[in-house]
This record gives sequence, structure tokens and C-alpha cells, in this order.
Amino acid sequence: MFFASDNAGPAHPAILSAMTDALGGYALGYGADDTTAAVEARIREIFEAPRAAVRLVSTGTAANALLLATLANPWESIFCTPQAHVWEDECNAVEAMTGGASMAHVAAGPDARMTPDTLLDAIAGRGGAVHRAQPGPVTITSVTERGTLYTPDEIAALSDVAATRGMKVHLDGARFANALVALGCTPAEMTWKAGVDAVSFGGTKNGCPAVEACILFDPDPDWEMQLRRKRGGHLLSRHRTLSGQMQGYLAGDLWLDLAARANAAAARLAAGLRALGLGDTVLAEPEANMIFVSWPMRLHDRLTAAGAVYYVMGHSDDPEAPVIGRFVCDWATSEEAVDTFLGHLRTALETKAA
Amino acid sequence: MFFASDNAGPAHPAILSAMTDALGGYALGYGADDTTAAVEARIREIFEAPRAAVRLVSTGTAANALLLATLANPWESIFCTPQAHVWEDECNAVEAMTGGASMAHVAAGPDARMTPDTLLDAIAGRGGAVHRAQPGPVTITSVTERGTLYTPDEIAALSDVAATRGMKVHLDGARFANALVALGCTPAEMTWKAGVDAVSFGGTKNGCPAVEACILFDPDPDWEMQLRRKRGGHLLSRHRTLSGQMQGYLAGDLWLDLAARANAAAARLAAGLRALGLGDTVLAEPEANMIFVSWPMRLHDRLTAAGAVYYVMGHSDDPEAPVIGRFVCDWATSEEAVDTFLGHLRTALETKAA
Amino acid sequence: MFFASDNAGPAHPAILSAMTDALGGYALGYGADDTTAAVEARIREIFEAPRAAVRLVSTGTAANALLLATLANPWESIFCTPQAHVWEDECNAVEAMTGGASMAHVAAGPDARMTPDTLLDAIAGRGGAVHRAQPGPVTITSVTERGTLYTPDEIAALSDVAATRGMKVHLDGARFANALVALGCTPAEMTWKAGVDAVSFGGTKNGCPAVEACILFDPDPDWEMQLRRKRGGHLLSRHRTLSGQMQGYLAGDLWLDLAARANAAAARLAAGLRALGLGDTVLAEPEANMIFVSWPMRLHDRLTAAGAVYYVMGHSDDPEAPVIGRFVCDWATSEEAVDTFLGHLRTALETKAA
Amino acid sequence: MFFASDNAGPAHPAILSAMTDALGGYALGYGADDTTAAVEARIREIFEAPRAAVRLVSTGTAANALLLATLANPWESIFCTPQAHVWEDECNAVEAMTGGASMAHVAAGPDARMTPDTLLDAIAGRGGAVHRAQPGPVTITSVTERGTLYTPDEIAALSDVAATRGMKVHLDGARFANALVALGCTPAEMTWKAGVDAVSFGGTKNGCPAVEACILFDPDPDWEMQLRRKRGGHLLSRHRTLSGQMQGYLAGDLWLDLAARANAAAARLAAGLRALGLGDTVLAEPEANMIFVSWPMRLHDRLTAAGAVYYVMGHSDDPEAPVIGRFVCDWATSEEAVDTFLGHLRTALETKAA
Repeated sequence: MFFASDNAGPAHPAILSAMTDALGGYALGYGADDTTAAVEARIREIFEAPRAAVRLVSTGTAANALLLATLANPWESIFCTPQAHVWEDECNAVEAMTGGASMAHVAAGPDARMTPDTLLDAIAGRGGAVHRAQPGPVTITSVTERGTLYTPDEIAALSDVAATRGMKVHLDGARFANALVALGCTPAEMTWKAGVDAVSFGGTKNGCPAVEACILFDPDPDWEMQLRRKRGGHLLSRHRTLSGQMQGYLAGDLWLDLAARANAAAARLAAGLRALGLGDTVLAEPEANMIFVSWPMRLHDRLTAAGAVYYVMGHSDDPEAPVIGRFVCDWATSEEAVDTFLGHLRTALETKAA
Repeated sequence: MFFASDNAGPAHPAILSAMTDALGGYALGYGADDTTAAVEARIREIFEAPRAAVRLVSTGTAANALLLATLANPWESIFCTPQAHVWEDECNAVEAMTGGASMAHVAAGPDARMTPDTLLDAIAGRGGAVHRAQPGPVTITSVTERGTLYTPDEIAALSDVAATRGMKVHLDGARFANALVALGCTPAEMTWKAGVDAVSFGGTKNGCPAVEACILFDPDPDWEMQLRRKRGGHLLSRHRTLSGQMQGYLAGDLWLDLAARANAAAARLAAGLRALGLGDTVLAEPEANMIFVSWPMRLHDRLTAAGAVYYVMGHSDDPEAPVIGRFVCDWATSEEAVDTFLGHLRTALETKAA
Repeated sequence: MFFASDNAGPAHPAILSAMTDALGGYALGYGADDTTAAVEARIREIFEAPRAAVRLVSTGTAANALLLATLANPWESIFCTPQAHVWEDECNAVEAMTGGASMAHVAAGPDARMTPDTLLDAIAGRGGAVHRAQPGPVTITSVTERGTLYTPDEIAALSDVAATRGMKVHLDGARFANALVALGCTPAEMTWKAGVDAVSFGGTKNGCPAVEACILFDPDPDWEMQLRRKRGGHLLSRHRTLSGQMQGYLAGDLWLDLAARANAAAARLAAGLRALGLGDTVLAEPEANMIFVSWPMRLHDRLTAAGAVYYVMGHSDDPEAPVIGRFVCDWATSEEAVDTFLGHLRTALETKAA
Repeated sequence: MFFASDNAGPAHPAILSAMTDALGGYALGYGADDTTAAVEARIREIFEAPRAAVRLVSTGTAANALLLATLANPWESIFCTPQAHVWEDECNAVEAMTGGASMAHVAAGPDARMTPDTLLDAIAGRGGAVHRAQPGPVTITSVTERGTLYTPDEIAALSDVAATRGMKVHLDGARFANALVALGCTPAEMTWKAGVDAVSFGGTKNGCPAVEACILFDPDPDWEMQLRRKRGGHLLSRHRTLSGQMQGYLAGDLWLDLAARANAAAARLAAGLRALGLGDTVLAEPEANMIFVSWPMRLHDRLTAAGAVYYVMGHSDDPEAPVIGRFVCDWATSEEAVDTFLGHLRTALETKAA
């Protein structure tokens, strides 16, 4: 009953095995090894992007900040929703790595998605005279921070707004695979075919120990990205540590299988909630591997006492106060774990009703 | 015959195995797992420093820049030798992470070691009026970038200069274990007992995939260090990736055994050079696992043709031009590799002589 | 009919004369001159703050960014309203000078004032775990960017929220004198007695060529502020350029007289608008020397054609579209200018009505 | 007998008068006034550079840092001599404004001049692999920080080294006019005709209150420079404060006359030293308005007691210890002041001899 985050579960054995294999013998450091070359080529293939620049780092924060620093100037504002991970949970990493760009919010509902209209409103507040921060890149997240998705068409509509103003589009794909299998589209359709310029392609939340790929579809600023990676302390010397993981992750369809498992576990959980009559507690229709619910603190306490682990916002001393709970399933979330949790939930509801 | 760097060899199987074990099952992310707690405690124990703050990152550049950013203000100069890794090989990482501190050089000979006198000279050029960058921390490296060592007494003499001026001392210990076994002292004697305030305690160059520990003996700025780690993108979420490695590395005396092996290989290589009458080509007496030589380009070309891999400075088109070669041995460097190399070297010398 | 900004009018002759006098003869540079010492003492006296650190710079952006950089850490968020000058009109100066702090918005109505409640809401979104930017200083502006004021009691209520959380309070006083004469309180009552820690005390918008004072009531970080001023390029060498102006500005009650004149001109303008039946077009009750109105683009075009100069937001091609006009009066705004403008406005209205 | 600095003397009355005139009446702020346009045009004319971008700021540190930030990337090293003002006396302003570029030293003798050979040596230490900071712009100062000059040919030789490597050249012209009249060349010959890309064109040290012009001969990055100026807090709103001064400074040949006066005073002082048999104490042949001497602390104490004010390096308690004295003459240094000083010096020498 561990639903705290998809970075809390086990790494997948096949990925660990591939990493271990990659780390035998001698090979040049800093990415000049064969495994890294093979992985970069594999990612270009997956994205149908033969010219793309692909560089590996060990965290999603590094991937996001590195790509945004490469796309943005320090006198610009980067556009994101108020719920964006880059705003909420990266402790000013983007401001730091860009050398002082600002983050401008694009209004979003509880589904954490911006729209062309809200993006246009936000852009209108920047730029023009020299006094204003100028419009910089847009960054969106899919799966979003509230468990929803952007369809390729929705991404394309945002990219159109950006492109006509010379602004770039970055996709925080910490849960890229979860979005992809949910949408049933190709990586290319979800990214460059929809106007995305740069992707943080996540591995960590989907069974890798710690690896993310920075992808720039236009490779022109690749050297800048590499220099920024180095000066950010993000160029791993024994680089096979990163590429070995990614090689295992992308072998066969493992990465897609793992995401499908996580999504299925979340769907099972959502179905269970509805079966218990709790459909109304679910905020934003869950589309991948995350579910957000709103229920009383009292219920949260009961579930915690029963051993459930999940993230909660709005912790309160008032047992009737509503809190928002976040449930994240990962590749290893078992049907048993979901069912056990639902059992405890049923008990808690019955106790209340009794 | 692979002497390019100690990050080019294999990771040690026991370390990989420990990491794999640590990455099974569920555990909270971001360092809130038991493995990380155990590793931090183990490092405090090794350093006889029960109050020390210990935080893990994945690169030496990150460790150095993070610690120096925590110790320095952006209006200060950090003192290092001209050969220091932080100056030569980190692409302005320190300037970036400190928010614009400068690096002031302390004169050093071919042994890449500063002395109290050269440090005093450098300090004299900073500070005083508001126009000058103010004196900030001193950073030294041991094993140095030229294969030499600072004894605890030498470190203490530098620390005295710093401490009387309110300046902190950082030790870049990318090859900490190699220095320690060469000196035959304790970690405490090499660091806080000699006045060192902060250590980058390296694992990567001694058989780990990618892990370094940032150690602050005065834990007061620990929270700042943690926030800086996060905003630098250096807080790994699936943190057992780092702590698992470090746990394997520090189990028993593995870390010391590995360093002893690397040092022994280098000693065998140095002895072989002397036996071939090449003692004079060796720059700075090798004291740990690195040897620097100066010999003609012609000889370098022969060795390269024979399959030797090592780093060379001063590449030239003139076959008689002297180049500086760097040979680094790691834990896996075999006696056979050393002897094979020496055999090729003997042949090359005889060919020349004939 | 020039209402574009209070930096667009003439410098006051007495101020220019004082500056000219100060710039004769020899004196040490960088603030080590007698004029500067006298001005710093005079400001401490005016603020009844004998321990305050006072440092001069040449722009309001520099004053704000310098003070906020001294009060904030780069891993913090600074709280301001969405209309704040530091957010709207300083091109990421705060993000730059703090080394990458972020700006978090505190909700405000059309009057551009935050309240303790909206401040608390904003603070709730920051801090806690290491992932979040931590709560940093609050910055308020009075006269606000929409022409309204905070009373000392309102400031004290905000400061209470901040102080109980260890957060500092900065007052952007670009129009400090205008606020002061409108409120009828003392500088101390408007600042440190109400819990303010730092003030940008403006001269430029009230008749000085280019001078602002940075005031820190707790002088402990004064040396840091001085070093930051220098490295920001804001330490004027021929410092009498700044202190000479400020000396003239603060001589007698000139600074208060000039603000009173500007406020009176704005009051005359507001009264004229009401007399013309345009009271409803005025947004946020004008309390000092700025008036914001909302009227049709058509009317704006008529007034512009008649020679009126003022700043307009929401420029449109649609003659009926509402635009927001900003009218700023300065010390030199004459009754004639106001009346002439009102005359043109009456004509425009009558033409429309006819 | 005030030789402390050329920022310590009086501003020239004609310059003050022009500034006062410019600051009457209404004009748009932030450089959109006629005076600023006229001054920018005048500077383009003086430099025979009709396309050049010209922007005014209030300090030399701002001018240098702003131009270097516009020319450099944060992963680069900027090349300067160890005596350069940007290294010695700007408290890391360049590191700050560039977002963390580093400063690499180019060897220079006591004359503080780099040569093509020393520049090449310094460049060899940067660039290449991603680990190294990459080669960025070169910055030279003329009049140098030791009172010497670069001839146009010497500048061209340095520019050739830079240009063939894609590096830009910046000239810190804090004492541009003093160099120009000493060399007898045109502004164009001293700058863009010799390959210089950017100039900090100083006014402050030559009789202006506080104004410097940033000149970019290739105007492409002008908008970036303007945005950087704004976010650095260096865009003065009542911009006529800057342009008014500069207008007075450049009217007729005033700026050249003032520099000629300062140079003549220094020449008189140098001749007096030689006449007293102190020619050997003069370090680096004085070529403009600065003289550096080395004499005993004892002599320095005597002169100070007699009322002489000048800057000294190497202050000592030992009366026989040599100290380095810096004498700077400005436009207002009178023959009487020089002769009085020489008289005191003669007395001091005779007393010693007696």
C-alpha cells in the first residue's frame, strides 16, 4: 500500500542487470563510451528524430533546468502553470541554472493544464519595452502534476501560440512513458510533430535508478547544452552508469510495459474508488498513473493507521477538514496492494456509516 | 594498458551488488530511506565526526561546487592552485554555483601543491576595501592533480593561515582513499584534525559507478547545503542509487583495499620506469595512483600504436617535442597490464637505441 | 499636459544647484566624502534611526534589487503583488541580483495592495520540504503601482505576518515622500515602527536627477550591502554626484514640499474628473500623485491628438474598447497643465454627446 | 597636492552646466529624450562608426561588466592581465553580471600590458574539451592600470590573435581621452580600426560627475545590452542626467582639452622627479596622467605629513621598506599643486641627505 511516489518503488531487475553489465571492463569516461552512443542513437530512433541531440543526466530537475537554461535567456520569463514541478518542487533550480530568468504563471484549473487562451493572457503580461522580462520558453508537463494529459492536438495548439512569437516549447516528460501508453500515440506525435522543441525524457519514475535524457530536436545548441551540463556538475564521468540503465530501460518494449503496468494499477484503484461510491472524491479524471482525491482528514487518518502511504496536501487537525491525497502507482504496484488498500477503505467507510 | 583515468575502469562487483540490493522494494525518496541514513552514519563514524553533515551527490564537480558555494559568498575569491580541478576541468562550475565568486590562483610548482607562503601571497591580493573581492575559502586537492600528496602537517599549516583570517578550508578528495592509504593516517587526521572544514569524499574514481559524499564537519550550514543540492538538480529522488553504492564501497575495508590496489599498480609502473632508466622522465614523485612523465612525442606515438591509452598534454607534430603523459591506475589495473606496457616501452627504447 | 511619469519632468533647480556645489573641489571618492557622510546622517535623522545603514545608488531598480539581494537567499521566494514594479518593470533584476531567487505573487485587487490574508495564502505555497523554494522577504510598494497607499497600521499587519515567520519586509519607496505627505505620518511610523526592515527611499521621481537611498534599519548586513553595491556596478566613484543631489533634496522641507505639490496636482485632476461626471472611470481611489482611469480608446485618441501625454495599457484598434490610462503628476505639474487637459477632456466629451 | 585619483577632483563647470540645462522641462524617460539621441549620435560621429550601438551608464564597473556580459557566455573565461581593474577592483562584478564566467590571467610585466605571446599562452589553458572553460573575450585597458598605453598597432596585434579564434576584444577606456591625446590618433584608430569590438568610453575620470558610454561597433547585440542594462539596474530613468553630462563633455573639444591638461600635469610631475634625480624610482614610463614610483616608506610618511595625498601599495612599518605610490593627475591639477609637491619632496630628500 505504498502510493507515495513512483520514485519510491524498486528499480526493475532487468534495468539493474543492464547497468551492471555496462559497468564492466574499461571504457572512456564522460559519455565517450559505446553504451552511451548506442543509447543516444536508440532514443533518436524511438523519437524518429535522427538529428536530435540527446544527453543524459541523473535527475529530472537537472534535465528540466538544463534544457530551459539552453532555451531561455536570463532576461526572459518562462511560462508554466502554478502547479508545475519546475515552480513547485525544484527550489528555484530554473532561476539558478538560467542565471536569473523568472517564472510566469499561466492560469490552469484543477487539472493543471494550460490552454492557448490562458497562455496568451500570460504572454501579454511580459515583453514589449525593455522594462519587462521578455517572453521565453513555455514548459508543460505530461502526465501533468495532477495526473491528467495533454493530447498531441492540445500540445500543438500551445506550440502554435509559442512558435508564432518565436518562443520555444519544453515538455517535462518525467512520466513520458505513462502519458504515451495512455494516449496510444508515438513519441514523435507527442513531441516534435506537435511542435515541442525539447523534452525531459524520464526514466527514474518508471523503474530506472536515476536517469533522464535531455532531448533537443534542433541540435544546434547541443554544445551549449553539453557545456551547461558540465558546469552544472551533471556530466557523470563513469557515464555508463547512466547509459547502462537507459539501455536496459529501452530494450525491447520494457519501458512501455512498465508504464502500462503502472497505469493499469491506477485504473484498478480508480475503478475501486468508483465502486465504493467515491467517484466524486476524485479530482481531475485520472488518465495515467496518478489519482488525486479529496476526502476528510478523518478518513486519511484511518487509512494511514491501516498502513497506507500516500502524499497528502492540506493536513489538518480538524477530522472533518478535506485533504487532498495523491496516489501514485509504479510498475511494481501489485493488484494485491491496490485491493488491500481498497479493502481498508471499505472498512473505514462502513465503520463511519455504522 | 588503459591508463586514461580511474573513471574508465570497471565498477567493482561488490559495489554493484550492494546497489542492486538497495534498489529492491519500497522506500521513501530523496534520502529519507534507511540505506542513506546508514551510509551517512557510517561516514561520520569513519571520520570520527559524530556531528558532521553528510550529503550524497553523483559527481565530483557537484560535490566541490556545492561545498564551495556553501562556504563562500559571491563577493569572495576562492583560492586554489593553477592546476586545481575546480579551475582546470569544471567549466566554471564553482563560479556558477556560488553565484559569481572568483577563483584566485595560489602559486604552485610542478607538484601542484600550495604552501603557506604562496597562499599568503595570494590572500594579500584580495580583500581590504570594498573594491576587491574578499578572501573566501581555500580549496586543496589530495591526491593532487599531479599525483602528489599533502601530509596532515602540511594541510594543518595551510589551515592555520586560513583560520586566522576567518577563511574556511575545503579538501577535494576525489582520490581521498588513495591519499589515505599512501599516507597511512586516519580520515580524521587528514581532515578536521588538520583544520579542514569540508570534504568532497570521492567514490567514483575508486570503483563506484557515480557517488561522492559532501561532508561538512560543522553541520550548521547543512540545511543550506541541502537546499543548494536540490536547486542544483543534485538531489537524486531514488536516493538508494547513491547510498547503495556507498554502502558497498564502505563495507569492510573494501574502499581501502581498492585504493591500495591502485596505488600498488602505480608503484609497479614507477619502478618499471626507473628500471628502464626513465626515472628522470617522471615529474613530481608519484605518491599514490598517478604518474606524470615527460618524454618525446615520438615515444608517445609508438606506445599509442602498441595499444597504450593514457592522457597526454602538449600534443605536437614534432616527433622530438616533449609531451607530458599522465598514467592513472585504478583498482582493476592488473600487473599484466603494467608489465605489458613496460614491455612495449622497452621495445620502443631499444628500437630507438639500435 | 505631460502626465507620462514623475521621472519625465524637470529636476528641481535647488537640487541641481546643491549637486553642482558638491562637485567642486577635491574629495575622496566612493562615498568617503563629507557630503555623503552628511547625507547619510541626515537620512538617519529623518527616520529617527541612528543605527541605520544608508547607501546611495542611482536607480530605483538598483535600490530594490540590492536590498532584496541582501535580505534574501537564492533558494527563497520573494513575495510581491502581481502589479509590483519589481515584477512588472525591472526585467528580472531581482532574480539576477539575488543569484536566482524567485518571485511569488500575493493576490491583490485593482488597488495593488496585499493583505495579511493574501500574504498568508502565498506563504503557504512555499517552504517546508527541501523541494520548495523557502519563504523569503516580502516587498510592498507605497505609493503602490496603482496610486493607493498602505497605512502604517496596514504595513504593521503585514510585518506581523512576516516577522512571526522570520521573514523580512522591504518597502519600495520610489514615491516615499508622496505617500508620507498623503498619510501625514512620520518616516519612522511608515517604516521601522511598522516593522519594515529595509526601504528604497526614492529621490528621482520627486525632483532629483537620479538618486535613491538604500536603508537597512538593522545595520548588520551593511558590509554585505556595500560589497553587493560594488559588484553590481552601483558604487559611484565621484560619489558627490549622488550625495549632492540628496543633500539638496532633503534641505529644509524641500522633499516634502515637492511631494505635496505633486499630490495637489493629482487631487486637482481627480476633482476635475469628478466634476465632469467621470468619477466612475477612476480605478482605485487616488491617494497621492497617480490616477488610473478606464475609458474608451476613442477618448484616448482624442486626448492624444490634443497633446496630452500619459501612459496607457490595453491599446486597441477598437474605438470603443476600454483602455486604462495612468496619469502621474510631479512637483512641476502646473495648475494650468491640469486645467488645460480638463478643458480638452470636456471638449471631447461634449463632441461625443453632440 | 591631491593625487589620489582622477575621480577625486571637481567636475568641470561646463559639464555641470550642460547637465543642468538638460534637466529642465519635460522629456520622456529611459533614454527616449532628445539629449540622449544627440549624444549617442555624437559618439558615433566621434568614432566614425555610424552603426555603433551606444548606451550610457553611471559607472565604469557597470560599463565593463555590461559589455563583457554581452560579449561572453557564462561557460567562458575572459582574458585580462593580473593588474586589470576588472580583476583587481570590481569585486567580481564581471563574474556576477556574466552569470558566472571566469577571469583567466594573461601574464604582464610591471607595465600591465599583455602581448600576443602571453595572450596565446593564456588561451592555450582554456577551451578544447567540455571540461574546460571555453575562450571568451579579451579585455585590455588603455591607459593601463600602471599608466602605460597600447599603441593602435599593439592593439591590432592582440585583436588578430583574438579574431582568428572567434574571440571578441573589449577596451576598458576609463581613461580613453588621456590615451587618445597621448597617442595622437583618432578614436577609430584606437578601437575598431585596430579590431576592438566594444569600448567602455569613460567620462567620470575626466571631469564628468558620473557617466560612461558602452559602445558596441557591431550593433547586433544592442537589444541584449539594453535588457542587461535594465536588469542590472543601470537604466537611469531621468536619463538626461547622463546624457546631459556627456553632451557637455563632448561639446567642442572639451573632453580632449581636459585630458591634455591632466597629461601635462603628470608630465610636469615626472620631469620634476627626474630633475630631483628620482628618475629611477619611476616604474613603467608614464605615458598619460598616472605615475607609479617606488620609494621608501620613510619618504612616503614625510610627504603625507606635508599634506600630499596619493594611493600607496605595500604600506609597511619598516621605514626603509619600499612602497609603490600612485600619482594621478586630473584636469584640474594645477602647476602649483605639482610644484608644491615637488618642493616638499626636495625638502624631504635634502633632510635625508643632510
